[in-house]
Amino acid sequence: MEVFTAIQGRRSIRKYESTPVEEEKLSKVLEAARLAPSASNLQNWKFIVVRDENNRFKLAEAAGGQSWVAQAPVVIVACGTETDKVMLSGQHRYNINVSIAVTHIILEAYELGLGTCWLGMFEEDKVKKLLNIPEDVRVVAITTLGYPSEDALPRPRKSLGEIVSFEKYI
Amino acid sequence: MEVFTAIQGRRSIRKYESTPVEEEKLSKVLEAARLAPSASNLQNWKFIVVRDENNRFKLAEAAGGQSWVAQAPVVIVACGTETDKVMLSGQHRYNINVSIAVTHIILEAYELGLGTCWLGMFEEDKVKKLLNIPEDVRVVAITTLGYPSEDALPRPRKSLGEIVSFEKYI
Repeated sequence: MEVFTAIQGRRSIRKYESTPVEEEKLSKVLEAARLAPSASNLQNWKFIVVRDENNRFKLAEAAGGQSWVAQAPVVIVACGTETDKVMLSGQHRYNINVSIAVTHIILEAYELGLGTCWLGMFEEDKVKKLLNIPEDVRVVAITTLGYPSEDALPRPRKSLGEIVSFEKYI
Repeated sequence: MEVFTAIQGRRSIRKYESTPVEEEKLSKVLEAARLAPSASNLQNWKFIVVRDENNRFKLAEAAGGQSWVAQAPVVIVACGTETDKVMLSGQHRYNINVSIAVTHIILEAYELGLGTCWLGMFEEDKVKKLLNIPEDVRVVAITTLGYPSEDALPRPRKSLGEIVSFEKYI
């Protein structure tokens, strides 16, 4: 599948089939994260693959009770390590690096016929406690992964004119 | 080009041909950013396309004097707006959302035969002053864009075993 086709076609999927995700596909999605670029090639990320039903229910609970989260056969919890490292720009490395890797996961999953939904609404302390995540590690993102059982419609987007300017900020 | 091929083949490019980037390709790269998902579909991003030679030199200067930055015919400065908005997870929306969009830019550019290099080393205040960026807007990332004039080698990556665990953080 063309990159642009994946970018255009990807949707946030909130309904999943119970069909398990094949090991091969899961590995490929994780490989896409592994190959992601990161500031100074730091690769300061950890991905926790959650398939245990009880854990998935607890993650759904930590995600503001979004019960559909537990329906997905796989939930990936993406963590940033070395969270004290800041770039000259003033931005932390961990959240940007992990965001790049999770974007790779999402696009590659779509290429493989799998759905995802990036979650930002979760109580980090509950997730950390559940999965034994050390104090100095941050949970940047959680995504569900599985075969979609919905055809989600595209969401509206701002026009290019609203988000792009030339030479100066407008 | 397959998504996975782009993920595997992409490199950070620090040497560029002087050939301009076609308007059509520039538009497609920006369209890839426009279509990116964002928390609550907020789309709190602005992309400044810099082609003016003088501005590119000044950006190179702000990027710790990395003179190759000015060699690229296009430099895209990716900004986050609504920078006070925080998700339940404790993460800001602006830096994560912009990182997703810039990842789209980078993969789509590669599909179109263009090279990029994500910069985190820049003095934000200098960039903001140069491009008239408002105080409450943050510059999250800068990337060069142009036809590569180098074959960059792949950088080493940690193994999957080092970055993936199952059910618990290890």
